[in-house]
Amino acid sequence: MGDPAGVGPEVAALAWAARSEHGLPPFVVVGDAAAIEAVWDGPYRRIADMEEAARVFDTALPVWHLEDSGPLTPGQPTAAGATCALHTLETGIGLTRTQAAAALVTGPVSKFALHNVGYTHPGQTEFIAERCGVTATNAVMMLAGPKLRVVPLTVHIPLADVPERLTTELIVAKARIVARGLSRDFGIHEPHMAIAGLNPHAGESGQLGDEEIRIIAPAVAQLAEEGIIVDGPLAADALFAPGIRDQYDAILCGYHDQALAPFKALHFHDGVNLTLGLPIIRTSPDHGTAFNIAGRGKADAGPTIAAIAMAARMAAARESAFTPAQ
Amino acid sequence: MGDPAGVGPEVAALAWAARSEHGLPPFVVVGDAAAIEAVWDGPYRRIADMEEAARVFDTALPVWHLEDSGPLTPGQPTAAGATCALHTLETGIGLTRTQAAAALVTGPVSKFALHNVGYTHPGQTEFIAERCGVTATNAVMMLAGPKLRVVPLTVHIPLADVPERLTTELIVAKARIVARGLSRDFGIHEPHMAIAGLNPHAGESGQLGDEEIRIIAPAVAQLAEEGIIVDGPLAADALFAPGIRDQYDAILCGYHDQALAPFKALHFHDGVNLTLGLPIIRTSPDHGTAFNIAGRGKADAGPTIAAIAMAARMAAARESAFTPAQ
Repeated sequence: MGDPAGVGPEVAALAWAARSEHGLPPFVVVGDAAAIEAVWDGPYRRIADMEEAARVFDTALPVWHLEDSGPLTPGQPTAAGATCALHTLETGIGLTRTQAAAALVTGPVSKFALHNVGYTHPGQTEFIAERCGVTATNAVMMLAGPKLRVVPLTVHIPLADVPERLTTELIVAKARIVARGLSRDFGIHEPHMAIAGLNPHAGESGQLGDEEIRIIAPAVAQLAEEGIIVDGPLAADALFAPGIRDQYDAILCGYHDQALAPFKALHFHDGVNLTLGLPIIRTSPDHGTAFNIAGRGKADAGPTIAAIAMAARMAAARESAFTPAQ
Repeated sequence: MGDPAGVGPEVAALAWAARSEHGLPPFVVVGDAAAIEAVWDGPYRRIADMEEAARVFDTALPVWHLEDSGPLTPGQPTAAGATCALHTLETGIGLTRTQAAAALVTGPVSKFALHNVGYTHPGQTEFIAERCGVTATNAVMMLAGPKLRVVPLTVHIPLADVPERLTTELIVAKARIVARGLSRDFGIHEPHMAIAGLNPHAGESGQLGDEEIRIIAPAVAQLAEEGIIVDGPLAADALFAPGIRDQYDAILCGYHDQALAPFKALHFHDGVNLTLGLPIIRTSPDHGTAFNIAGRGKADAGPTIAAIAMAARMAAARESAFTPAQ
């Protein structure tokens, strides 16, 4: 559920209510059951193991109650709530790592509230990577929707730092993880990727910047030697046009906004944030805690429904990848 | 028609054929009439003044023949063709400056071919600005479509140069021109603009870069003092989501791809490139010469039709802005 005072509890409950319509598989909400009670009039059931969750799912929202996080008002984050969100995340990782659950869908947390209770990771992804024994640089963020999958190769750094942080090694390392993720978790046998140029018009043969020639093209060549198909560097604007973007299973971008601005233009309500390179499947609705509307019946469960549905498809693809042919 | 060997001649002819369907006003194609003959079986008429063009428009495509540019094969640019494109541009500017024409729609040219015949301007816009007595920095590029208008505040420069080139003065100067253009050429009386942050999440209060605080916010404050409404700096990805982008008459962006990647994701077939800050109205289909498909019946006239229709709407808005109320 993420932060119990955010929109996480209500969008989880709304996703359960829409389970038949969207063909969602059984899921359990982890966190403070009082947060569900505060925003949800429908049936829910406290459960204590995953078998029970699957049994009750048809008739009630299964809630794995972790702890009472104190007096709770939707929209008003507290230290106890942030601590509960952290324990929720730990429990979710544990359930998925032990394969009691097939996938982890993380609800929105407040970075600010978490930092106030001593959490030092920049986001949930780095924490999950650490608990899974993966270095944070090998946990690759992807945004996926029905029309488009994008990967920002650098993420939360100033734009001025991007040209020096985007190295051939970084591109190669992340592209390998994306190629493996597309094949293992999306069932795409020979994924076809594109990479955007860093500069306008992909640098126009070096006239508008040379990173395409110095950094990106050598990465593309090295990946090709490994059998990983990446077209580019291609002009970032033309690449997102329909007819071009449709040719690729994923588009690799140099920086945050190059990937996320066109992605959100197309997929605001059904975009899913997911992490490749982990031993577990992890997706997330691509929005924050939205404290300003929490508990007011205004939250859109669309992104959470999309995140649960995508996690289910990824789990099925991964299972079939690991099932020997008969 | 732009370069006579590009797709310019055929998309102009196709736009004429679709004139009734799209309610296009009379227009004349300027350039080498042989380029029209090479790709068009329909009726056309050589004309020598604009009155005549208006008279024949209902029954034939009016062509203002400038010069024979020599043996012409669609898709194969020549020096004579590039020279003709340059004369075409000069004539178009002249017709519009003298108000013989209400607006100029420029067809695609080859920068490479033009440079080979001694043209030294980076693009057509700089040349038009010079001929209109406007400095190139005051000619502001806008991309406009039914869902979105965007302005890249810096354009054809390397990404690494953007942080130092995006100054408070530049933002203020360009925002003024955009505000005036929205009101004069689009009939929007109190335009409402937004400006994107340069860094991811608009810098997160300085944690991911300080250009928002040092450069963008002071520009927004100065514009507000002048009565020009600009919201921001706002996170570039969220800004392009439906429901957010719809609130603004134009979105100002720090650099080329921040504006053009989301724009082309939404408006590949109906996006129009236009120039604000000129004494004349100038639009352009947002694509190149496409030599690889010229003359093969594959060119999409949609962007040219959109550019002509938008020029007509802008001309009507400007005329009504300059007509005193009765």
